[in-house]
Amino acid sequence: MAKQMEARGAAAKLGLPPGSAVHVGAVSDPTRVVVTSWGEGPPQRRILAPEEAPPAPAPGRLVWVDVAGLADAARVRALAVGYGLDALLVEDILHTGQRTRVDAEGTGLFMILRLPRTGDDPLDLADEQIAVFLAEGVVLTFREHDDEGLFAPLERRFGRRGHAPSGADVLGHAVADLVVDHVFLVLERLADVEEELEALVLERPEALPRAALHRLRQGLLLVRRGIAPLRGELAELVREGHPLLGRQARHYLRDLLDHVLRAVEEAEAMRETAAGLTDAYLAALGQRTNEVMKLLSLVATVFLPLTFLAGVYGMNFEHMPELHWRWAYPAVWLVFVAVAAGLVWWFRRRGWL
Amino acid sequence: MAKQMEARGAAAKLGLPPGSAVHVGAVSDPTRVVVTSWGEGPPQRRILAPEEAPPAPAPGRLVWVDVAGLADAARVRALAVGYGLDALLVEDILHTGQRTRVDAEGTGLFMILRLPRTGDDPLDLADEQIAVFLAEGVVLTFREHDDEGLFAPLERRFGRRGHAPSGADVLGHAVADLVVDHVFLVLERLADVEEELEALVLERPEALPRAALHRLRQGLLLVRRGIAPLRGELAELVREGHPLLGRQARHYLRDLLDHVLRAVEEAEAMRETAAGLTDAYLAALGQRTNEVMKLLSLVATVFLPLTFLAGVYGMNFEHMPELHWRWAYPAVWLVFVAVAAGLVWWFRRRGWL
Amino acid sequence: MAKQMEARGAAAKLGLPPGSAVHVGAVSDPTRVVVTSWGEGPPQRRILAPEEAPPAPAPGRLVWVDVAGLADAARVRALAVGYGLDALLVEDILHTGQRTRVDAEGTGLFMILRLPRTGDDPLDLADEQIAVFLAEGVVLTFREHDDEGLFAPLERRFGRRGHAPSGADVLGHAVADLVVDHVFLVLERLADVEEELEALVLERPEALPRAALHRLRQGLLLVRRGIAPLRGELAELVREGHPLLGRQARHYLRDLLDHVLRAVEEAEAMRETAAGLTDAYLAALGQRTNEVMKLLSLVATVFLPLTFLAGVYGMNFEHMPELHWRWAYPAVWLVFVAVAAGLVWWFRRRGWL
Amino acid sequence: MAKQMEARGAAAKLGLPPGSAVHVGAVSDPTRVVVTSWGEGPPQRRILAPEEAPPAPAPGRLVWVDVAGLADAARVRALAVGYGLDALLVEDILHTGQRTRVDAEGTGLFMILRLPRTGDDPLDLADEQIAVFLAEGVVLTFREHDDEGLFAPLERRFGRRGHAPSGADVLGHAVADLVVDHVFLVLERLADVEEELEALVLERPEALPRAALHRLRQGLLLVRRGIAPLRGELAELVREGHPLLGRQARHYLRDLLDHVLRAVEEAEAMRETAAGLTDAYLAALGQRTNEVMKLLSLVATVFLPLTFLAGVYGMNFEHMPELHWRWAYPAVWLVFVAVAAGLVWWFRRRGWL
Amino acid sequence: MAKQMEARGAAAKLGLPPGSAVHVGAVSDPTRVVVTSWGEGPPQRRILAPEEAPPAPAPGRLVWVDVAGLADAARVRALAVGYGLDALLVEDILHTGQRTRVDAEGTGLFMILRLPRTGDDPLDLADEQIAVFLAEGVVLTFREHDDEGLFAPLERRFGRRGHAPSGADVLGHAVADLVVDHVFLVLERLADVEEELEALVLERPEALPRAALHRLRQGLLLVRRGIAPLRGELAELVREGHPLLGRQARHYLRDLLDHVLRAVEEAEAMRETAAGLTDAYLAALGQRTNEVMKLLSLVATVFLPLTFLAGVYGMNFEHMPELHWRWAYPAVWLVFVAVAAGLVWWFRRRGWL
Ligand SMILES: [Mg+2]
Ligand SMILES: [Mg+2]
Ligand SMILES: [Mg+2]
Ligand SMILES: [Mg+2]
Ligand SMILES: [Mg+2]
Ligand SMILES: [Mg+2]
Ligand SMILES: [Mg+2]
Ligand SMILES: [Mg+2]
Ligand SMILES: [Mg+2]
Ligand SMILES: [Mg+2]
Ligand SMILES: [Mg+2]
Ligand SMILES: [Mg+2]
Ligand SMILES: [Mg+2]
Ligand SMILES: [Mg+2]
Ligand SMILES: [Mg+2]
Ligand SMILES: [Mg+2]
Ligand SMILES: [Mg+2]
Ligand SMILES: [Mg+2]
Ligand SMILES: [Mg+2]
Ligand SMILES: [Mg+2]
Ligand SMILES: [Mg+2]
Ligand SMILES: [Mg+2]
Ligand SMILES: [Mg+2]
Ligand SMILES: [Mg+2]
Ligand SMILES: [Mg+2]
Ligand SMILES: [Mg+2]
Ligand SMILES: [Mg+2]
Ligand SMILES: [Mg+2]
Ligand SMILES: [Mg+2]
Ligand SMILES: [Mg+2]
Ligand SMILES: [Mg+2]
Repeated sequence: MAKQMEARGAAAKLGLPPGSAVHVGAVSDPTRVVVTSWGEGPPQRRILAPEEAPPAPAPGRLVWVDVAGLADAARVRALAVGYGLDALLVEDILHTGQRTRVDAEGTGLFMILRLPRTGDDPLDLADEQIAVFLAEGVVLTFREHDDEGLFAPLERRFGRRGHAPSGADVLGHAVADLVVDHVFLVLERLADVEEELEALVLERPEALPRAALHRLRQGLLLVRRGIAPLRGELAELVREGHPLLGRQARHYLRDLLDHVLRAVEEAEAMRETAAGLTDAYLAALGQRTNEVMKLLSLVATVFLPLTFLAGVYGMNFEHMPELHWRWAYPAVWLVFVAVAAGLVWWFRRRGWL
Repeated sequence: MAKQMEARGAAAKLGLPPGSAVHVGAVSDPTRVVVTSWGEGPPQRRILAPEEAPPAPAPGRLVWVDVAGLADAARVRALAVGYGLDALLVEDILHTGQRTRVDAEGTGLFMILRLPRTGDDPLDLADEQIAVFLAEGVVLTFREHDDEGLFAPLERRFGRRGHAPSGADVLGHAVADLVVDHVFLVLERLADVEEELEALVLERPEALPRAALHRLRQGLLLVRRGIAPLRGELAELVREGHPLLGRQARHYLRDLLDHVLRAVEEAEAMRETAAGLTDAYLAALGQRTNEVMKLLSLVATVFLPLTFLAGVYGMNFEHMPELHWRWAYPAVWLVFVAVAAGLVWWFRRRGWL
Repeated sequence: MAKQMEARGAAAKLGLPPGSAVHVGAVSDPTRVVVTSWGEGPPQRRILAPEEAPPAPAPGRLVWVDVAGLADAARVRALAVGYGLDALLVEDILHTGQRTRVDAEGTGLFMILRLPRTGDDPLDLADEQIAVFLAEGVVLTFREHDDEGLFAPLERRFGRRGHAPSGADVLGHAVADLVVDHVFLVLERLADVEEELEALVLERPEALPRAALHRLRQGLLLVRRGIAPLRGELAELVREGHPLLGRQARHYLRDLLDHVLRAVEEAEAMRETAAGLTDAYLAALGQRTNEVMKLLSLVATVFLPLTFLAGVYGMNFEHMPELHWRWAYPAVWLVFVAVAAGLVWWFRRRGWL
Repeated sequence: MAKQMEARGAAAKLGLPPGSAVHVGAVSDPTRVVVTSWGEGPPQRRILAPEEAPPAPAPGRLVWVDVAGLADAARVRALAVGYGLDALLVEDILHTGQRTRVDAEGTGLFMILRLPRTGDDPLDLADEQIAVFLAEGVVLTFREHDDEGLFAPLERRFGRRGHAPSGADVLGHAVADLVVDHVFLVLERLADVEEELEALVLERPEALPRAALHRLRQGLLLVRRGIAPLRGELAELVREGHPLLGRQARHYLRDLLDHVLRAVEEAEAMRETAAGLTDAYLAALGQRTNEVMKLLSLVATVFLPLTFLAGVYGMNFEHMPELHWRWAYPAVWLVFVAVAAGLVWWFRRRGWL
Repeated sequence: MAKQMEARGAAAKLGLPPGSAVHVGAVSDPTRVVVTSWGEGPPQRRILAPEEAPPAPAPGRLVWVDVAGLADAARVRALAVGYGLDALLVEDILHTGQRTRVDAEGTGLFMILRLPRTGDDPLDLADEQIAVFLAEGVVLTFREHDDEGLFAPLERRFGRRGHAPSGADVLGHAVADLVVDHVFLVLERLADVEEELEALVLERPEALPRAALHRLRQGLLLVRRGIAPLRGELAELVREGHPLLGRQARHYLRDLLDHVLRAVEEAEAMRETAAGLTDAYLAALGQRTNEVMKLLSLVATVFLPLTFLAGVYGMNFEHMPELHWRWAYPAVWLVFVAVAAGLVWWFRRRGWL
């Protein structure tokens, strides 16, 4: 189930000065740093050894430092500070549970993104924090998990000679775009789940798994929370511009903003549908209960009086004249049938049958 | 049922560079291109052969290129790019599932519209993406389905000599107006459905088809989502103006904006009513269940004690003095009647009968 | 019941050019035109014959042309165009189902108002469109129904010599004010209904008429929709001013705006109350059902075991030693009483009795 | 119960010209006018005789005219007009049911305040309109009821020599502050009620008085409606300033605005809590019903089969071999016990017991 | 349970002049004043004797006066006024129940913060008012409880030589930051509770403690109310700046604002989840009731007719031919089995089993 507060550990930070770089959050993967650089010649991509100094930015060169796994907080901190990140931003990188935002105040451009991911069960949702820092000729990415496949599409796109990103801005956009693409991917999987649940609720409410609707709503809440703040943040960035943003990247960001709007609307509509399904489920249950109650009521109303009557003639009083009448037994059967028929007719008239 | 996410296929686009013209969406119709041109002489309308070059814009001439069916993505792409559309816009044309918007940033004016349509069952709603591009002397329309009837009213209005649209702006307005007219058409059909469901809920809740209210709400959600963004987009266009927009088209757009506001209000009110009907249905079910329960309770409360009593005198103990009393049997009947009458009286007093 | 979409007929207008003056809406009354004019001498009021030309505006004269009933669309159109109304506005006059608005863009001042009216049953609500056009020395009013009584208060106020309205603006305000007064009238009737329903829900939920709450909510929705847009429209008019608006009329409009705010708040609060009543009704039903169920449960829990026991000693086995014991029968009665008393005691302890 | 629309009587005002000073509203108290004036010497306070002229403002003097009871509409009107109030404002004073507002457009400063008051039962809420008019050296207050105690705190504060208010602005603030203090008083009483109802809902839902929650919500709605508009109105007054407002009064008003914000938040939170209690009550009822149903189900499921079996061996067929078996009776008891035990075990396993 | 209105006692303040320093609120701790000062040499920290004068601000010195416990209102008042606080602010300090706000209008910077705290039971929530006043070289803090541990982290951070805060602004930020850290702490504890309740609702709804969900929602409401106003207030402070705010403190405040946004979003999401759990609980109850009802219905529907039949053959009529048939008894058993099997089959077919 989607966890309520991903980054626990507030107690550990109580009253610490701002910028204390303690890693707070779920257990992170071991830190692996991959450096890709584009300049003259083909792109170069290699794993940075722990003790090795990261490459400095240089004119005509673009360096991408991808930090996968935040377990080695000291190394992450040293690396980030080495590229000029403010201590407060380093804190946010390590304290994974930040809200999505774009921070354009310092020298560079800093983004917190939240990447939603599902397990085999689409309702097993979690989200991972991805921090991106852009400066002249440098892109840094920090992510909680060392998942090689995540950035593979970027390597395919920019990995061949002549396909270098035109600047940090274009590479930064590509990362954000990838995250938004993942949001759509997750929304699609959730939409499939929602359609299945919809069919169940409307056709066979009894078969609905107990927690399914609640988990779906929680999942959509998680996705929405991760992407929604990007609307305002991107709109501001596009409107205000930034020294690092070239014409093309800005054009791309406008398109990205549109995707974000679409994703949020999608998530909202799905949440509305899920809420509607909860209502529909309650209505379906109420209607089933009502049906069953009507049957029970009918059976009891018909048979309780009859059973009583049978009970009366089962009494052992000495003086019960009817017991000795010749046609009493058939007459009682007539009464039985008449009472039952009358009650059924009355039920019909009331619209209960 | 209204599908949650029309354009699936996020996986196919993961990490692709912006502007990749892959057709993503439901299977589209084969591409058919119809060119209409107004200039000197009568309007000319013909189907463009696949290999044929589309006509270039020329002074004193208005060309309308209607692309019906997007299956041939390459052809669509070539055609759009030929008229100067940006790669990002071409992508949106082919990736049908975009949100409604007006894009006035480039050289032309680009609109995504969503056309709602019902099948024989008004609740079988789907919406089709219609992209419109306006430039000097040129109008392009791109739509998912090759439905000849859709634009027939425009052909009737502009198809006779002397009735040429005064510019791309007027023709563009006419397309948008047609879409909004369809929205009203669909809302009317849904309003009929809603009135029928309202009558059922209030008169015969048992007869309400299981999924009807949910489907109605989903349909209204779809219609609302398709039209609501147009409020802000049109208001901005009217307020800011655009080089392509003449005085008359702007006047028309103001009127269109008013229609859009009306359609959204209509849809909102219908959604509110539908939500109210869900509440009313639950209340009606609750009230039915309550009625049935009261009957059941009455019958059981009256007959269970009586049956018990009859059972007592049906016991076979050797020493049961009452069995031998002369008037025991009539006396027991008196008790039966008294108990029953007392309970009925008590029910009455409690307001349960 | 309040109809969802008053003005049906979208199909008839599909793709028509803007400004097509087709009457679309409920069947309207036959057109009757009453002209009142104030100038030197006493006010003059007369019915305009169908072929007669309406009076032209003149300096020092105020002319009010009241068009009651829109059945004769051609005459309405000619008359409106004669006074300089735009074709798009004429279309809105005839297509009765427009949303409330104020249109200050052209030469005159155009208003769509919606007049709510109840029948004998306050919940039989409908609303009528009243279009008002103001120009220098001229006021035009267009309304769906030829109801002589509607404007009677205005005739009383302005009909005597020396009481002429000081200009088109003051007369226009008087019409709008009358509509808002009617809104309060309708809200008062609905408030009476709401109080009655409130008493029923809280005192005798079973007696609540089936559809009453739903109809009340629908009625309030209709009233609110008709008046709410006037808030923004009047506020803008008062803020921006208009060449036709004199100091006094603007002062009056500010007051009217305050009435409108009050009416909307009233309607909102009544809607909230009505929603609360729906909740209260469900709670009351639930509580009734709960009470009845507890009784049923008690009766069944007490008598089913007793009846079983009686049944046991009604069995006809040859070898049942108890049947022959001397005090068996009184002993069984003791058991009966003990079991019943124990169960009642246990119910009491659980708080179910 | 809080009445929906305090000031009925819309019909009486239909089409009247603006500024018609008809008293419309609940029956008001007889008009009593108290004049207090501060100048040289001790403050003077006396009741103004009906025929007496109210004191004119003079330099160095502050006059407070408190009109308690609006029954004598003519006198109220004459008095108000005498101090320069606009006819539209006089109308609002007499038509008690206005919404809370501040009107800073004319020469003076006009306020409508709504004073909530409870009877012995805190849920017996009503609100009274208090109109305040400030001009240079003059404060007028108009209130529906002639309640001597209401302004007593002001007399205590300003009634001693040397404690004169420094101007009309400070006295006006004191009146508004008193109204807001009353709002807190009423909110406190309602908070006590809410806590009691909360305890009932959570501990003994059956004991909850039928209408209590609904009445609480209605009361909070009334209080909120009366105070909420003051947020915007005061904020504007503080922001824009006014010739009558001195530095100190403006400082005080800022503080008052903060109180108003707090009162509205309080009322909102209490409304949210009350809504939550409605939900909790429904859940508690549902849970009680569920419990009772489980018991009923258990008893019926155990005893109906047993009773049937007993009934079988109570049949009078000639040929029933079991009846003659030696150990049949004990064997049947074994069956009884086994069936009952098995069913109880099965209930346990399903978590129903 | 979270109390609705912490600071009762409105009656005591009715009509008092603004700035009356009466302590209104829950009983407060005895007043203890701790003064810390940083200048040359090591920081000095000591308890101020009741009669002792607090240190005056001096250039090159920073003084922090921490007032813990507000019972001695006179002393608190004297101290605050001595440092130049306005009477209205002193009133707010003593009337603990103010809403969170930042007040930057006077000479200093004044903040009301609300510190949420839980007892052993995380749902035993209360909040304490903390007032902070910043001036040149002086920081005052006023808090309801004399809890030594609360500010301990600040003493650790700033208590060593060479770690003095660079100014009143940095110390003020540290206090606010501590409060926000506590908010996260409380949210974490509530998130744990919510996860437990979620598991209960979805797995074993019967085991859910009666009031738990309601109390959770109330607690989240309290936390949200305390922190939410800080969003706007801090954003304004950061945007507008203030003479007391240095570059570093402003940088820190921006970070704090981000934490506040995150805390509010967290609280909102948890509230949404809690509301969803209420829905899920109702659905689970409904589903349980439905299941139990189906069982009851099945048992009654099968056994009531059988019992009736058994009752019929238990009647004592003289003339009942079946009683004497040779195979009647086995035949009746066949009927019993057939009826039961038929009913079970029918239940299955309806999907009720
Ligand atoms: Mg989370
Ligand atoms: Mg967070
Ligand atoms: Mg988080
Ligand atoms: Mg977030
Ligand atoms: Mg976050
Ligand atoms: Mg619901
Ligand atoms: Mg869609
Ligand atoms: Mg889509
Ligand atoms: Mg959309
Ligand atoms: Mg879309
Ligand atoms: Mg979309
Ligand atoms: Mg609902
Ligand atoms: Mg309507
Ligand atoms: Mg309409
Ligand atoms: Mg309308
Ligand atoms: Mg409308
Ligand atoms: Mg409409
Ligand atoms: Mg009102
Ligand atoms: Mg409801
Ligand atoms: Mg509710
Ligand atoms: Mg009222
Ligand atoms: Mg009122
Ligand atoms: Mg009011
Ligand atoms: Mg109001
Ligand atoms: Mg509180
Ligand atoms: Mg409080
Ligand atoms: Mg607050
Ligand atoms: Mg507070
Ligand atoms: Mg408060
Ligand atoms: Mg709810
Ligand atoms: Mg809900």
